[in-house]
Amino acid sequence: MNKNKFAVTPPMGWNSYDYYDTTVSEEQVKKNAEYMAAHLKKFGYEYVVVDIEWYSNDAGTKRKEFQYIPFGDDVMDEFGRFQPSPGRFPSSADGSGFTQLASYVHELGLKFGIHIMRGIPRAAAEKHLPVKGTFFTADMVADPSSICGWNPDMYGVRNTEAGQSYYDSLIEMYASWGVDFIKCDDICDSFIYRNDSFSGWHETEMLYKAIQKSNREIVLSLSPGPAHIDRAWQYCRYANMWRITDDFWDNWELLKNMFWRCELWQDHVKEGSFPDCDMLPLGKVGKGFETGERDCLFTREEQKTMMTLWCMFRSPLMIGAELTKMDDFTLGLLTNKELLALLSEDCRGEQLRRSEEEAVWKNTNIKTGKLTAALFNLSDTDREICLNMEELSGRETDKDSYEFTELWSGEVLHSGKEALTVVVPAHGTKVFSVR
Amino acid sequence: MNKNKFAVTPPMGWNSYDYYDTTVSEEQVKKNAEYMAAHLKKFGYEYVVVDIEWYSNDAGTKRKEFQYIPFGDDVMDEFGRFQPSPGRFPSSADGSGFTQLASYVHELGLKFGIHIMRGIPRAAAEKHLPVKGTFFTADMVADPSSICGWNPDMYGVRNTEAGQSYYDSLIEMYASWGVDFIKCDDICDSFIYRNDSFSGWHETEMLYKAIQKSNREIVLSLSPGPAHIDRAWQYCRYANMWRITDDFWDNWELLKNMFWRCELWQDHVKEGSFPDCDMLPLGKVGKGFETGERDCLFTREEQKTMMTLWCMFRSPLMIGAELTKMDDFTLGLLTNKELLALLSEDCRGEQLRRSEEEAVWKNTNIKTGKLTAALFNLSDTDREICLNMEELSGRETDKDSYEFTELWSGEVLHSGKEALTVVVPAHGTKVFSVR
Amino acid sequence: MNKNKFAVTPPMGWNSYDYYDTTVSEEQVKKNAEYMAAHLKKFGYEYVVVDIEWYSNDAGTKRKEFQYIPFGDDVMDEFGRFQPSPGRFPSSADGSGFTQLASYVHELGLKFGIHIMRGIPRAAAEKHLPVKGTFFTADMVADPSSICGWNPDMYGVRNTEAGQSYYDSLIEMYASWGVDFIKCDDICDSFIYRNDSFSGWHETEMLYKAIQKSNREIVLSLSPGPAHIDRAWQYCRYANMWRITDDFWDNWELLKNMFWRCELWQDHVKEGSFPDCDMLPLGKVGKGFETGERDCLFTREEQKTMMTLWCMFRSPLMIGAELTKMDDFTLGLLTNKELLALLSEDCRGEQLRRSEEEAVWKNTNIKTGKLTAALFNLSDTDREICLNMEELSGRETDKDSYEFTELWSGEVLHSGKEALTVVVPAHGTKVFSVR
Amino acid sequence: MNKNKFAVTPPMGWNSYDYYDTTVSEEQVKKNAEYMAAHLKKFGYEYVVVDIEWYSNDAGTKRKEFQYIPFGDDVMDEFGRFQPSPGRFPSSADGSGFTQLASYVHELGLKFGIHIMRGIPRAAAEKHLPVKGTFFTADMVADPSSICGWNPDMYGVRNTEAGQSYYDSLIEMYASWGVDFIKCDDICDSFIYRNDSFSGWHETEMLYKAIQKSNREIVLSLSPGPAHIDRAWQYCRYANMWRITDDFWDNWELLKNMFWRCELWQDHVKEGSFPDCDMLPLGKVGKGFETGERDCLFTREEQKTMMTLWCMFRSPLMIGAELTKMDDFTLGLLTNKELLALLSEDCRGEQLRRSEEEAVWKNTNIKTGKLTAALFNLSDTDREICLNMEELSGRETDKDSYEFTELWSGEVLHSGKEALTVVVPAHGTKVFSVR
Repeated sequence: MNKNKFAVTPPMGWNSYDYYDTTVSEEQVKKNAEYMAAHLKKFGYEYVVVDIEWYSNDAGTKRKEFQYIPFGDDVMDEFGRFQPSPGRFPSSADGSGFTQLASYVHELGLKFGIHIMRGIPRAAAEKHLPVKGTFFTADMVADPSSICGWNPDMYGVRNTEAGQSYYDSLIEMYASWGVDFIKCDDICDSFIYRNDSFSGWHETEMLYKAIQKSNREIVLSLSPGPAHIDRAWQYCRYANMWRITDDFWDNWELLKNMFWRCELWQDHVKEGSFPDCDMLPLGKVGKGFETGERDCLFTREEQKTMMTLWCMFRSPLMIGAELTKMDDFTLGLLTNKELLALLSEDCRGEQLRRSEEEAVWKNTNIKTGKLTAALFNLSDTDREICLNMEELSGRETDKDSYEFTELWSGEVLHSGKEALTVVVPAHGTKVFSVR
Repeated sequence: MNKNKFAVTPPMGWNSYDYYDTTVSEEQVKKNAEYMAAHLKKFGYEYVVVDIEWYSNDAGTKRKEFQYIPFGDDVMDEFGRFQPSPGRFPSSADGSGFTQLASYVHELGLKFGIHIMRGIPRAAAEKHLPVKGTFFTADMVADPSSICGWNPDMYGVRNTEAGQSYYDSLIEMYASWGVDFIKCDDICDSFIYRNDSFSGWHETEMLYKAIQKSNREIVLSLSPGPAHIDRAWQYCRYANMWRITDDFWDNWELLKNMFWRCELWQDHVKEGSFPDCDMLPLGKVGKGFETGERDCLFTREEQKTMMTLWCMFRSPLMIGAELTKMDDFTLGLLTNKELLALLSEDCRGEQLRRSEEEAVWKNTNIKTGKLTAALFNLSDTDREICLNMEELSGRETDKDSYEFTELWSGEVLHSGKEALTVVVPAHGTKVFSVR
Repeated sequence: MNKNKFAVTPPMGWNSYDYYDTTVSEEQVKKNAEYMAAHLKKFGYEYVVVDIEWYSNDAGTKRKEFQYIPFGDDVMDEFGRFQPSPGRFPSSADGSGFTQLASYVHELGLKFGIHIMRGIPRAAAEKHLPVKGTFFTADMVADPSSICGWNPDMYGVRNTEAGQSYYDSLIEMYASWGVDFIKCDDICDSFIYRNDSFSGWHETEMLYKAIQKSNREIVLSLSPGPAHIDRAWQYCRYANMWRITDDFWDNWELLKNMFWRCELWQDHVKEGSFPDCDMLPLGKVGKGFETGERDCLFTREEQKTMMTLWCMFRSPLMIGAELTKMDDFTLGLLTNKELLALLSEDCRGEQLRRSEEEAVWKNTNIKTGKLTAALFNLSDTDREICLNMEELSGRETDKDSYEFTELWSGEVLHSGKEALTVVVPAHGTKVFSVR
Repeated sequence: MNKNKFAVTPPMGWNSYDYYDTTVSEEQVKKNAEYMAAHLKKFGYEYVVVDIEWYSNDAGTKRKEFQYIPFGDDVMDEFGRFQPSPGRFPSSADGSGFTQLASYVHELGLKFGIHIMRGIPRAAAEKHLPVKGTFFTADMVADPSSICGWNPDMYGVRNTEAGQSYYDSLIEMYASWGVDFIKCDDICDSFIYRNDSFSGWHETEMLYKAIQKSNREIVLSLSPGPAHIDRAWQYCRYANMWRITDDFWDNWELLKNMFWRCELWQDHVKEGSFPDCDMLPLGKVGKGFETGERDCLFTREEQKTMMTLWCMFRSPLMIGAELTKMDDFTLGLLTNKELLALLSEDCRGEQLRRSEEEAVWKNTNIKTGKLTAALFNLSDTDREICLNMEELSGRETDKDSYEFTELWSGEVLHSGKEALTVVVPAHGTKVFSVR
C-alpha cells in the first residue's frame, strides 16, 4: 500500500477534544457524526475522531487536580490493549471495542478515527501481560525510561521484535474494529527529554509498518507538535500528517505564531504528507475543561484569518467545535467553497513575505494556473497592505490590469499592472481570486 | 530571470582552495582551466573558481600564525570594493579586475567564478568610503557587530537601502568582469553568534536581488556549512547551492558523517537548488597549507564511496585537486559516465536506510524508470549488505529475477525476486544499475 | 597588594550613566561630587564614576539612531589609548587626561572612577599604532574576532605578551591620572558568542595583573551581567565587584527577578569580592536617553524593597540619580543608617526562603550576633507574611518573646516564641531589627 | 540538629559498588567491615556503605542485557518501602531490615550506610499502597512524570504533605535500623529532563527535613553528578556531600577532567558540605560487572595523582576496592598520613593555575600556616613544572630559601627565594610540604 494515497488531500473532519476533553460518549460522537453527514460531508469533511482516554472509567472525575488521573481506572484486555470504557461507550461492553460505533459512522458515509497514546500501558508492563500471538510479555516491550511528560498511562515501546509485535497486535485490533484514522499522541514531540526531543521516531516507523501489515488504509496523524523540521523527511516517509504546533487554541498570539510555523513548513506540503496546524477551536468549545462550555474567543476577523491561512497553506482541517451547537457564521466559515478549493491536490501554497506586521501568501493551481492571494494584517491596527503583481506572478507581468474577487465578501476590485493596495482590518485578512 | 534556470543540474567544476589556500595566481588558474577544457569539459565540468583572498597582497606570508592576516594589505577601489592583487593577477593591474581572466576562461568554453566574503571591508567603513553612484558611505553600510568568526576582513552589511546599494554596486562590477559563479562565504552558517547562527540570511536575499538587477545569470553558492535545515526554504528561494557541512577534507569521520547530512537534506535537492557536500579533496592537495603539497588521504575505496554518495544524492561536484597533476585513477573517478548520469534533472536520490554500519541509497530516473542502488559499508571491516527488492522498488515486486551491473567494476550479478546480498569492503561501496 | 583590601565593604558612590547616558561633562561631574561630599559622604558614599564614552566627541548626537555611533569621532593618543573629549572635559585639553578632575574629587575627600570598554580601539588596530614602551603594535594586540555586541569601539585584547603590555600601558596611565575605580564593560558577560559567553575572562586576569603592577589600589568592577556562576571563583580572585544582572532599571519585573539573582549569588559575598545588583535608578534619571529627564518609575514601596534587598544581600550601592536634583524621600532612602550598617564587614546575608509570592532574608552580624530579618512581598496584593523564629535563628529557640523594630518606620512589634506574622504591602517590605 | 556537625571533615569509608555492582551480600559486607576496622579505621576511614538494589531478588541475573532489570523482583513492605533481599541479607529475613548488619558494623567501631534511589517504588504506586501512619496512598505520593533515566525502580516524590510523609516514614525506618549514612541516587543530576536537570532539588530538601525529624545524625550524600554549580547553595544547605562528576572510573580522561571539576567547585568546600569526586576505583574492582574481577587500570603515577588531588581539594574518600584483596601498594596509597592530614577542618585547598598540560594546587592550614603544594603533570610526557614562591604564598616573599619534602617519596629539595622547578612524570604528581 502506498500511504500517500490514503490522503491525497488534507484530511477534513471533526475531533472531540476541544469540546469534550477526555469525556466524550458514544451518543455524543453519533450526534456529531450525524450533523457532519447532513451539513458538512458535501464540503469534504469526513473523519469523525474520538480523542484521548476513551479507555478510562474515571476520566474527568478529578478535573481540577488532574486532566489525566495517575494510576487511574482504565479498561484493558488480557493482551495489554486498552478497550473503550463501557460506561461511556455501551456498544463496547460485549468486547467488540469500537466496531459498532465505527460501523454507525461508516453507514453515514463517513470515516472513523481514534486517538491513541504512543506506547504500551504501564499497568500491562507491571503485570507482565502476554503480547497476543507471541511469546513476548509486556515487560519486554515496555521501555521504562520512555514516558510521556503530561500523561501517565503509557511506557514507550522498544525498537525490537517484541515491540513491533505489540504494535502489530494493536493495529490489527483497530483494523478489525474498522478504524480509518489514528491520531497518535506523544510521538511527534516529546518535550521532556534533553537529548532526544523527537524520541518517538522509531515508533512512528513501527506504526507505519504495523499499518502496512494490517492491510487497511489507516491515516496516521502525529501529535503533539511542534514537529522537528530536521525530521521532516521521516514524517513524510511514515505519516500522513503531523502537528507543527503544540496544542492550538483561540488565542491571537498562537494564531500569529502560526504564520512563522507555516513559513517554516511550506515546502513540505505534499500528497499524503501534510504538516498540520491543529484543530479549529470554533463555535462552542471547552465543555469538558475547567472553563466549562464557552464561545470561541477569536473575533470574526481572526476566525477568517485562521481559515484563510489553513487553506492557503493546505493544512488538514479538523473542527474542534461541538457540531450540534454550530451557529450560521461558523458554518459559513467552514464551508466557503472557493477557499476549500485551495486544498485540491493541484494547488500549491507559498509565503511571499512576512514581517511582524503583515504576511502575504499565494496559492497556485498548477493545472489551471489560477492564482489566489491572501493579505494578512498581523498588527493591532488597520493597515494598508500592498500586493505587487511581479512578486505574485514570479516574473515580469505583461498584463495591463487585474481583477480581484475577495473570497469572504465577494467584493470585486481592479488594479493596474503594478500593484494592488487595500486596507485590511487589524488581525484580519483579504483573500483574492486573481484574474 | 528565474534563478533555478541558472543551474538546472548540480554545478560541476574546479576550485582553487584545496590546493592553493589563499595563494593562487592568474597563471595557475589558467593552467587548470586549460586542463579542464581538454579533459573534463566533455563530462560536464565547467566552472573555474578562484577562492579566498584574491585581493590580498600579503596572503600566505604568515601562514604559521594566520591563515588570514588581521589588518592586512588588501587592494580596494575608491568605492570600498576589493580588487585582485596585481602581483598575483597581473591582468588586473590596469584596473579591469578579473575581466581578462574571465575572458580567457570563457574562450575555453568554460565559466568563471570567484569567492567573496559576506559584507563590506572593515577598512572601507573606518575610512567612510562612498558607495558608488549613491550618497551613502561605507560606515552607513557596515554593521559593526556583524563579523566573521575566522576571517578579519569584513563587516556584515545592514539590511537597509544603503546596504542593498553596496551589494548592487558590487555585483554590477562582478557582472561587468564576466563573473558566472559567486561562492559567498561566512553567510550560510555564522557559528559565532549565540542567537542567530544563520545571521547572513538577509544578506542572501540582498545578493539575490543584486544578481537579479545585474541581469547576468550568476550562480550563487553559499558557504560555509552546516546550513540550517530550518532555513531550507530560504536557501531554496535565493541561492543555487549551499554547503551542508563545514569544510570537508579527506578524513573518514567527515565522510561517514556526510551520510547523516545527506539523509537530512535529501528532500531538498531540486532544479536550481542544491544542497552541497563541498569540494572533492582528491589527487594532489594542500600546497598552500601548512602541510605543503600532499596526496589525498582517502583510500581508493573511500574515494569511490565519496563520488558515489555525491552522485546518488546529486551534490554539486567541485574538484579540489590541482588538475595539472592529476593521476589516472583520480581522473577515472571523476569521469564515470554512468555515475555522472545520476546528476541529470530527471533523477531523484533517496536514502532507503542508514545505521552506524551501513547505508543504502537509491536513485530513480523518473522519466525512464531506471533504478540505481548503492550499498555503502560504513563499518571498519568487510560486511555483507543486503538489498531488498521490495524496499528498492517501494512496492511488492512482480519480477522473478533482477540483473545488477556494478558501476565501478562493470561486474554483473543476478538475484532472485527477493533480495541481493553482496560483500562490500570496509568504508567501501557497491553501486548497481538495476534491471 | 591584596585586592580584597581595596574594598573591604561593598563600594558606595555615584555613577553618571542613569542620568547622562554618554553625555556627562566635567562641570556636571563636579557638581555631583560636591553634593556627595556635602550630603552623602558621611554615610559611606565615596566613589564618583564617569560612565561610558567620555572619549567621544560626537556621543549623543544621533541618539535616536545610535546609542554608540559606529566609526565615530573619538579622541585617542599616539599609543592607541582613549583620552577625554576636550569639549566635554576642558581640563583634559592639555593632554593630562582626567588628572585635574580626579584631583578635584580627591580634594573633596572622595574617590574618582571611570568606565572603560574591554579591549583596544578598533581604529588603533587599523592604524597599527605602537603600544607605549614596547615594539608591539595595536594590530598585534587586537583580536579581530573579539568584539562587543552592542558597542562598536573596541576589539578584544589577545592573551599574549603584546596584549598584557597594552593593558599595562593603559592602567599605568589611569594610575597616573589618579583613578581609584575602574568599571570595565563588555567583560563580565559577552552575550553574543555561542561557545564562550564569558569571553572576557582572560582579560579580567590581565587587568588584575596590570593593576597589581601599577601599584595603585584601583577597585575593579566588571560589567555587564549576568555574571556566570560557574566563573564565580575567577571573579572572586581577580575583581572586586561584578554585575549579576544585565542593566537594571526601574521596572518591577527586573526587581522581582533580582531576588532570584541574589539567591543564586548569596554564598559569594566576601571581603573584597561583591556580586553587584547594579545602580540604583532613583530620583531624577534618563536625561541623556530618548525619554529625557524623568522621575524614577518605582513606587515608594518598591524603592524600599530595592534598598532593603541591596543592603541585606550586601551589594555595592551606586546611585544612578542626578544628585543635585535629589528630593528628600530619595535622600532618606539612601541614608538609612541602620540599613547601611548591614553592609559592615561583620555582616552576612542569607535567603531563608523564596517563592513566587514572597521572600524572606536574614542578615547576621557575626561579631555581635545581631539579627535583621526582611519580609518581602513579591505579589501584586497585600499579603500576610510569617517569620518563624526557629527558621530565623537556625535552631530551637529558648526565648519566650521577641521585639522587632521596623527599620523604615521605626514601628516596634512583639512576638511570642514561635513566629511573627505581619501584613506587607504589594511589592513592599518590612525589615526588622530583632531582639 | 546542625547537619554540618554530622561530617566536620570529608567522610571516609568503603562502598560496595565498584567491586560488586548490584550483587553484594551480608557476608561480603561484614568481611570488608572487618578489614576496615583492622587496617583503615585508625587512618580515619569509618563508613561501610551497601550500594544499589539491596532490595532486589534478581539483581545481576541478566547482567548482559540489564544492569537494573525492569519490572523486576523486588522486596517491599506493606507501606511501599523496599526491604533487603533475604537471600543476600539473611539477617533481614525476620523483617528487621538492616538492623543486625548495622549493629555488627557498629560493634566494630564503624558506621553503616546504604544507597537509596530518589522516590517511591513504581510498584507501590500501581498498587496504591498506604503510607505508614497516614491516610495517604502511594499513588498520591508518586509523580508519574518523574523517573530516573537509567534505573526503572522508582517514581519521584511530589513536593506535598503526602510526599513528605512518605520520606518521613522511610527515614524513620532507616533510623530505626541504625543507618548513619545515606547515599541518595538520581537526585543530584537527572540528566534526562530538558528543562530541569536538577529535578531532585525539592526532594533533597524533603530528605533533609525527614532526617532532622528522625533525630538521628545521618550523613546525606547525593548522586550522581555532575552537580549543578548554580545549585551550590542548595546542596550546601541540605546535604553533606554531592557528586561533582558522573560515575568516576579508572580512566585517565576522567581523571584529567576532574581537575576542571575541582577548579569549578574549589570555593564550595566547607565544614559539613563537601563536593565529592566519587569513589576511588583502586585495587581489585569490577567483579559484579560484565568485565568480571580486574585490577585498577590506573598506573601507579595516576593513582598517586588521584589521591593527591582528592586530598588537596578535600573530597570525601570512599574506597571502591574489595578490601580483603588489597595489595600493599594500594594500602600505602590510602594511608599516607601527611596527605590525609590535608582533610583536616583547618585546611583549605585552592587551585593556583591550570592548563591543558599542568595544574598547581596549594593547601593551607589556616591555624598553623603550614603550606602544601602539589604539581600535577596532565600531559603525556615528562615535564618540568615550576612553582613560583610568590604565587604560592600570595604575597611578596621575604625568605631567602625554602625546604620541600615530597609526601610520596620523602625526598627533600631546596629552592632559592623565587621558585622551585621539578620534573614530574607524565600523568604524575609531586606534592610537597613547604617550609
